[in-house]
Amino acid sequence: MKTAHFILIFCLLALASPFAYASDPMFVNGKFCKDPKLAKAQDFYYSGLNIPRNTSNPVGSIVTPVNVAQIPGLNTLGISLVRIDYAPNGGLNPPHTHPRATEILVVVEGTLYVGFVTSNTDNRLITKVLYPGDVFVFPIGLIHFQFNVGKTNAVAFAALSSQNPGVITVANAVFGSNPPINPDVLVKAFQLEKNVVKNLQSKFW
Amino acid sequence: MKTAHFILIFCLLALASPFAYASDPMFVNGKFCKDPKLAKAQDFYYSGLNIPRNTSNPVGSIVTPVNVAQIPGLNTLGISLVRIDYAPNGGLNPPHTHPRATEILVVVEGTLYVGFVTSNTDNRLITKVLYPGDVFVFPIGLIHFQFNVGKTNAVAFAALSSQNPGVITVANAVFGSNPPINPDVLVKAFQLEKNVVKNLQSKFW
Amino acid sequence: MKTAHFILIFCLLALASPFAYASDPMFVNGKFCKDPKLAKAQDFYYSGLNIPRNTSNPVGSIVTPVNVAQIPGLNTLGISLVRIDYAPNGGLNPPHTHPRATEILVVVEGTLYVGFVTSNTDNRLITKVLYPGDVFVFPIGLIHFQFNVGKTNAVAFAALSSQNPGVITVANAVFGSNPPINPDVLVKAFQLEKNVVKNLQSKFW
Amino acid sequence: MKTAHFILIFCLLALASPFAYASDPMFVNGKFCKDPKLAKAQDFYYSGLNIPRNTSNPVGSIVTPVNVAQIPGLNTLGISLVRIDYAPNGGLNPPHTHPRATEILVVVEGTLYVGFVTSNTDNRLITKVLYPGDVFVFPIGLIHFQFNVGKTNAVAFAALSSQNPGVITVANAVFGSNPPINPDVLVKAFQLEKNVVKNLQSKFW
Amino acid sequence: MKTAHFILIFCLLALASPFAYASDPMFVNGKFCKDPKLAKAQDFYYSGLNIPRNTSNPVGSIVTPVNVAQIPGLNTLGISLVRIDYAPNGGLNPPHTHPRATEILVVVEGTLYVGFVTSNTDNRLITKVLYPGDVFVFPIGLIHFQFNVGKTNAVAFAALSSQNPGVITVANAVFGSNPPINPDVLVKAFQLEKNVVKNLQSKFW
Amino acid sequence: MKTAHFILIFCLLALASPFAYASDPMFVNGKFCKDPKLAKAQDFYYSGLNIPRNTSNPVGSIVTPVNVAQIPGLNTLGISLVRIDYAPNGGLNPPHTHPRATEILVVVEGTLYVGFVTSNTDNRLITKVLYPGDVFVFPIGLIHFQFNVGKTNAVAFAALSSQNPGVITVANAVFGSNPPINPDVLVKAFQLEKNVVKNLQSKFW
Repeated sequence: MKTAHFILIFCLLALASPFAYASDPMFVNGKFCKDPKLAKAQDFYYSGLNIPRNTSNPVGSIVTPVNVAQIPGLNTLGISLVRIDYAPNGGLNPPHTHPRATEILVVVEGTLYVGFVTSNTDNRLITKVLYPGDVFVFPIGLIHFQFNVGKTNAVAFAALSSQNPGVITVANAVFGSNPPINPDVLVKAFQLEKNVVKNLQSKFW
Repeated sequence: MKTAHFILIFCLLALASPFAYASDPMFVNGKFCKDPKLAKAQDFYYSGLNIPRNTSNPVGSIVTPVNVAQIPGLNTLGISLVRIDYAPNGGLNPPHTHPRATEILVVVEGTLYVGFVTSNTDNRLITKVLYPGDVFVFPIGLIHFQFNVGKTNAVAFAALSSQNPGVITVANAVFGSNPPINPDVLVKAFQLEKNVVKNLQSKFW
Repeated sequence: MKTAHFILIFCLLALASPFAYASDPMFVNGKFCKDPKLAKAQDFYYSGLNIPRNTSNPVGSIVTPVNVAQIPGLNTLGISLVRIDYAPNGGLNPPHTHPRATEILVVVEGTLYVGFVTSNTDNRLITKVLYPGDVFVFPIGLIHFQFNVGKTNAVAFAALSSQNPGVITVANAVFGSNPPINPDVLVKAFQLEKNVVKNLQSKFW
Repeated sequence: MKTAHFILIFCLLALASPFAYASDPMFVNGKFCKDPKLAKAQDFYYSGLNIPRNTSNPVGSIVTPVNVAQIPGLNTLGISLVRIDYAPNGGLNPPHTHPRATEILVVVEGTLYVGFVTSNTDNRLITKVLYPGDVFVFPIGLIHFQFNVGKTNAVAFAALSSQNPGVITVANAVFGSNPPINPDVLVKAFQLEKNVVKNLQSKFW
Repeated sequence: MKTAHFILIFCLLALASPFAYASDPMFVNGKFCKDPKLAKAQDFYYSGLNIPRNTSNPVGSIVTPVNVAQIPGLNTLGISLVRIDYAPNGGLNPPHTHPRATEILVVVEGTLYVGFVTSNTDNRLITKVLYPGDVFVFPIGLIHFQFNVGKTNAVAFAALSSQNPGVITVANAVFGSNPPINPDVLVKAFQLEKNVVKNLQSKFW
Repeated sequence: MKTAHFILIFCLLALASPFAYASDPMFVNGKFCKDPKLAKAQDFYYSGLNIPRNTSNPVGSIVTPVNVAQIPGLNTLGISLVRIDYAPNGGLNPPHTHPRATEILVVVEGTLYVGFVTSNTDNRLITKVLYPGDVFVFPIGLIHFQFNVGKTNAVAFAALSSQNPGVITVANAVFGSNPPINPDVLVKAFQLEKNVVKNLQSKFW
């Protein structure tokens, strides 16, 4: 077993701790860690969130994540960021959920129609049109979306309550899984014709 | 403010605790509680999970929940049960998520094709055909389903890692929210024709 | 140190995560993991909970566990199952505690007298006779038991709020520890004659 | 409903918080709180742990608790203390568990034989004889005891990882519950004669 | 006791839950809640984070919080935001800690010299000069600061891993407490002359 | 990679668990563990907390920690102890915070003036003079201190709600970091002359 077989995960708890007396990678509280004494600013740093990203894709939006995959020092700390760019006239961050995080979003540019749907109790849609400086919350596990209803680019920053929040885009998970879900399941669940389901599966695949 | 305006939530921590010296409803650790000394077996009990339920509905399945709404003593204890009945030849518990719980299911009758989809990393579908006595796990927050592929009724018990797990049926939340999601959002997200979206919304509404 | 010296623990969080870019066993959040891309249905599956088990033992009951030791994919997910078989006319799951889990039990066959005892505050016994379809809750850490008061076999499924709930059978831990507890401790604690204690220790040892 | 019907539980989180703008009892995060601005030293204070306590009782030990029932400011903070006095020549803190806490104990006077039993995996007894200045740990949920094997009084302080740890003395919960457990259960569980069980139940009742 | 004596705290868990069958304020899981069916977009919304704030104060910076005090729907969700404005040429967010949150900050304008100090193990200072689009992490409980080293205004957004993170500005807590800390404590702790301590206390008081 | 490169961290959960079937160091739930069957009393034991420690240092106090670094069996159990010795006439445990723990302290000898400061909401100082047997609580993350105002040695035991609580002495972190904080930051934050700041930094360095 060579070290190279492991991904080095930073152990932040140890940073604020008297528990550091080795000079090799080690475990503290079960985390595989760098020696905290070797931690450096780079482990807590990411650059480039000011750069507009290309939104030329079918949905017209792009998410730039800054989580534990980009900043190893975030490990165990329960927070992360994203920048979201939306194309003008309909750029869409399509309906999705974060299985492990609530999201709080602030609009820095443009006009966004945003919303989330409550659970099966009443499946209520709660929406708002947001302008620069507006903040909105999407509670953990609920399906939500943002839609650029303005004629210019839109940009938002959003924070998530996990260093590794995960994201499940509903349409992709349902119609684009690998391998595909048995079409009979989707025909019945979505009350669609089988050919419509198969057509959808061919698009998302 | 009258007591009747509140729902009495049981405070179980107090049961195993020296912290009980009142004979009126009270707070312990912020929970609105019965006096633990008045707790009785009824507060931990539910009856009827042996009774087959009617599956005559569009999806051909019915879920009977036993959570904190049915057993007040479950409050704060992080677990609940359901019984699921599936109609023969295609009874479906349609794709859904539990925002606050992992599920572990045991088949007691029939044959179920079950599966879940991993997150956007690769949207892999992981499936299995289950027979009586088989157990399967659906991790927290992931979209999953069960489909009766047998010619008889199917029945399963499932446990969830929350006293109040919640459930979000994907098709209903997306196409049946109240009020409906702007159809342009769904057209783009699902790459469907607008009339298909509107038709779907009219069905689920 | 060879890999074979480790037990491979599944890392489920990673399943629903963008955090998977290695093809070797790795750590994510301190968990020793399979590459999530290699996760397969088998990691979430167990078979055989439909099979009646032999209850020919001194207490007349047998527990079949389905936890992280049987289903590696349960790791970190906070839930597990058991099947319990009880012999007719007095099969007993003797007084025990789960140090890390609440239990919710559903009777599928037979008649069980069940109960738990609250803490030292008042050591109240809360009991119920259960029939098929009845559900009962045993709060975390409390001493509880099930006793077959019917003339037929009894069977129950129970879910526990931990993937590794642990179990401490009171009589065995107290009178059957290895090595034995100093008999003077048990004489005083249980107000028994010393020869009764020694006799008990010889039975459970 | 009058305020007097409630037990005022302190809300410590609010102490270190910008979330305090009322002058009446209020909820913060679901806790029923004093206005943090009215919190005073008395809410974090207890007096008298230096006073030897009377150990003239059947087991020859007495526990003086300092938890959220004595110090309301401990609410939500996850820690508490006890002082334990042991009579000479066999004062015993009998086998018990804390359903919600690990214990760390320091001996300040005397000689204690202490131990805990691991779970059913192997029911191992782990013991040590402790002298003044010695520290020992009893992991959460495990059955443990302390026994004064010296000829003088013994005194210990112990800390518990909960503001409301609970305690279940095994002998009292099993043989002294109210109402008593069906003797047939105890006969089988402890492999005792029925008259021995009934005799025990009469002592602890 | 009138309802007006309480601060209405939103109960978000209930939003994604089948646990809503009352039309009055109620408790769910110990939270004092609005009926989830009455939740509206306004409960998840805040406006004005685009507006530059006046930094004319002794330290030359101002923090605009968006936490549970501004957005009641954030309750229990474990996240919040702030906007920070820094005056040119030395606007300082002085050394402080958040007792309940890690912070992740993104610079949107200006140049900030930022840093945090590790715990007593080695009290290492970890710093970085940040430009627009740069992201930096300040781990929970550690003392940190941001200092505008540019000639223009600086602006940052920061997210915190709590809906109620708290903030303790070191200089104010130590030298400006109400009432003041005994000067002898500060003389010894900071190795300052007593008149310097008294002078400091008069400034911060 | 050799075993010697790792620090062996005990895995206590496994102790109370059926999850132990290897004879080599292993992971359980991501913790690097000894085989629980090899756990011995020594892993839960520490000796020497009865010994007075030398307080001849600039602040006149010394802390003897008993946490996971001294008792490996404490890992994951969320509690630890310290003994604190204070010199007569002004021995000071200077203002500090524990980033991950609340502290509960009991005085065993001497007279201590103790206090903590609430957060920026009002920076209130809450103090008490403590005598032997008195107990006081310092909530998580708040700045606190103890000061020997008696003419004799003082001794206290304190418990902390973490196996690895961390400690940040304010003066050392602010004026003694390595490398030093830019003096301009401290001049502005503490409203001190630059030469005073530089003098302080030279003392703590």
